[in-house]
Amino acid sequence: MSLETIEQARERLCPYLVPTPLVLSAPLTRAAGRKVWLKLETQQPTGSFKIRPALNGALAHLEECRRHGVVASSSGNFAQAVTYASRELRLDAQIVMMRNSSPYKIAQTEALGAKVVLCGNTFEERWETTYRLVRETGRVLLHPYDSLETIAGDGTLGLELLAQLAGDFTAVVPVSGGGLIGGIATALKLRRPGCLVVGAQPEENGSMFRSLEAGRRVNVGPVRTIADALVASTPGERAFEIARQKVDQVVLVAEEEIVRAVRRLAVEQKIVAEPGGAVGVAALLAGKLRAGAGDVVCIISGGNIPGLALARLLEGV
Amino acid sequence: MSLETIEQARERLCPYLVPTPLVLSAPLTRAAGRKVWLKLETQQPTGSFKIRPALNGALAHLEECRRHGVVASSSGNFAQAVTYASRELRLDAQIVMMRNSSPYKIAQTEALGAKVVLCGNTFEERWETTYRLVRETGRVLLHPYDSLETIAGDGTLGLELLAQLAGDFTAVVPVSGGGLIGGIATALKLRRPGCLVVGAQPEENGSMFRSLEAGRRVNVGPVRTIADALVASTPGERAFEIARQKVDQVVLVAEEEIVRAVRRLAVEQKIVAEPGGAVGVAALLAGKLRAGAGDVVCIISGGNIPGLALARLLEGV
Repeated sequence: MSLETIEQARERLCPYLVPTPLVLSAPLTRAAGRKVWLKLETQQPTGSFKIRPALNGALAHLEECRRHGVVASSSGNFAQAVTYASRELRLDAQIVMMRNSSPYKIAQTEALGAKVVLCGNTFEERWETTYRLVRETGRVLLHPYDSLETIAGDGTLGLELLAQLAGDFTAVVPVSGGGLIGGIATALKLRRPGCLVVGAQPEENGSMFRSLEAGRRVNVGPVRTIADALVASTPGERAFEIARQKVDQVVLVAEEEIVRAVRRLAVEQKIVAEPGGAVGVAALLAGKLRAGAGDVVCIISGGNIPGLALARLLEGV
Repeated sequence: MSLETIEQARERLCPYLVPTPLVLSAPLTRAAGRKVWLKLETQQPTGSFKIRPALNGALAHLEECRRHGVVASSSGNFAQAVTYASRELRLDAQIVMMRNSSPYKIAQTEALGAKVVLCGNTFEERWETTYRLVRETGRVLLHPYDSLETIAGDGTLGLELLAQLAGDFTAVVPVSGGGLIGGIATALKLRRPGCLVVGAQPEENGSMFRSLEAGRRVNVGPVRTIADALVASTPGERAFEIARQKVDQVVLVAEEEIVRAVRRLAVEQKIVAEPGGAVGVAALLAGKLRAGAGDVVCIISGGNIPGLALARLLEGV
C-alpha cells in the first residue's frame, strides 16, 4: 500500500464526501491530562467511516460494477455504506448479512434500497455465501476490510487528519478486520513517522491483538460483543501485514469500559457513538494508552445505534 | 450594533475558541427536500453557544472584572459559560439561578467553580437578585442576552457561518431573550442581505413572537417548556429592536415537535441536542419555514441535557 494509492482514493471520493469534523474535546482533555481530539466519522452520510471504502471500491471499478452489480458482506455499517454508494452511483447491490445481525441495521440497509441476503451466524458462513454469490452472479465483490481499494479508502481518513492537525500525535483506531487501522497507519507512518498508531479492540474479540502476539493471523471464533461493528474473528491478510509493520500498540477494552465511553460521549461531548465507535475513547479513559508525545486523536468510527439501545446504555440498565 | 463591533468580538474570542463544525445533514436534507446544514454549538467547550457572549463580555472589561469579579444570571447554559470563562481568565464569579433550575445545570455550574446564588422562580426575581448583587458588591454584570458585548459575541456565530457557507441561505435560530438571533441577524443582513433569518421559539414561551406581533416588548409571564434554555419571558430591549428590523420570521413549535427533533437528531444525525437547541430543527421538520432560496442552516445552540432525560426522550416515555 503506497501513499499514491491513498491519494488517488482521496481524489475519487472528493466529489462525494467532505472531510468530517475534528473537534477538540474539553471534557476528555480534562480527563486525560493531554489534548484529546475526536474525528467524527459519525457525521458521514451513512453514520460511519465505511462510506469511504465502499465508494472507493465501487469507483475504482465503476464500469464493471455498473455492468454486473456489486455484492458485499457486512455486520451492518459496510452494508449501509455499499447501499448508499450504489444508490449514488446507480449500481445494483446485494448485501450478505448474518441472520443475527442487528435488526436495526438490516432494516436500515433495506430501507436504502439494497437486497439483503441473510446467512448463518458465523463469519465463515458469511464469506461462503458471499463467494458463492460472486461465482454464481458475476457481481463485483466489495470487500469490507481487506482489499487494496478498501484500505486505500480507509486511508483517506489518515490524510484528513494530517491536514487537520499539526505535529506528531497518537491516533487511536477501532479495530475489527483491520482495514481502517491499516489505511490510517499507512498514511500517518509514511507522511509523519513520529505519529503513533494504536488499535483498540473489545476483549470479547481480540483477534488482531492475539494475531500480533502470535505473529500470525489467529481466528478467535464467533464473537459476541456490545460493539457489534467489531466482530471480524480474524484480521484481513493485507491488514495484518500492515499492522505488523506499522501499528505501535493494540489494546483490549472490557464491555463495561465501552459502555462507559458511549455514555460519557453522549452526556459530556454531546455526540452519539455506537459501542464500536467508542472503543478508542474507552481505551483512553481506562488509562490503557502508553504515555506518548503529542495530542491524542480518537477516531469515532460510527454512530449507528438504535435509539432504544442508546436509552438503555444511558440509563445504566 | 455594527459589523465592526462583531469583528472586534471575533478577534477577542480567537485565542479561546475555534469555529464550531458546520455539517451537512444527509437525513434532514432527505426529509426537507433542500440542503440542510447544522451548526454544532454543542461542540463548544461548555456545550452551548453561550461561551461566546460570556467570554466577550469579560474580555471587553477585563481589568474591571479582575478587580471586582463578575455576576451573571442564567437558566443554566450562560451560567456554565460565565463560570468557564471566569476560570480561563481568573475571575471571581457569582451566578444567580432560579431555585427550580435544572439540578443538572446547577451542579455543572458549581462543579466548574462558581458560587451559585439561588433565587425565586420568576424571571423578575432573578433580575432583582442580580441587580442587588451588582449594587452591593460592585461586581461587573455579564448580561445573558441584551448587552452590546453579548449580542456582539453571539454575532461571531454569524461571521463563522458566512465563512463556512457560500451564497444566500436561511438561518434558523433558537430564540429566548433574543441575543443570539440579534447577533446573527446583524452579521448576516449587513454582510449578505439576501440571507433570511428565522427565529424558532417554543409555543409555551412565544415572547418574541408575540412582541413582534404587538410591535412592543410583551412579557408572557412564567414560562414552562421542555426547552429549559428558552425561558426568557420577554425579549431584551436591544435584541427586540434588532429583531424588528432584521428578522424575517419567528415560528412557534409545540413541545412534541421539539421532542421529536431531539430524537431524530440523536438517532439519525448522531448528535445530542438539548430541547432548546433543537427548536430550529423542530420548525423545519414541522414544515413551518417559508419556502426560500438557498440552503437551510439550523443552529444547534446547545446540548446540555442530562443522560437520563435524554434516555426518556429516546424511549418516547
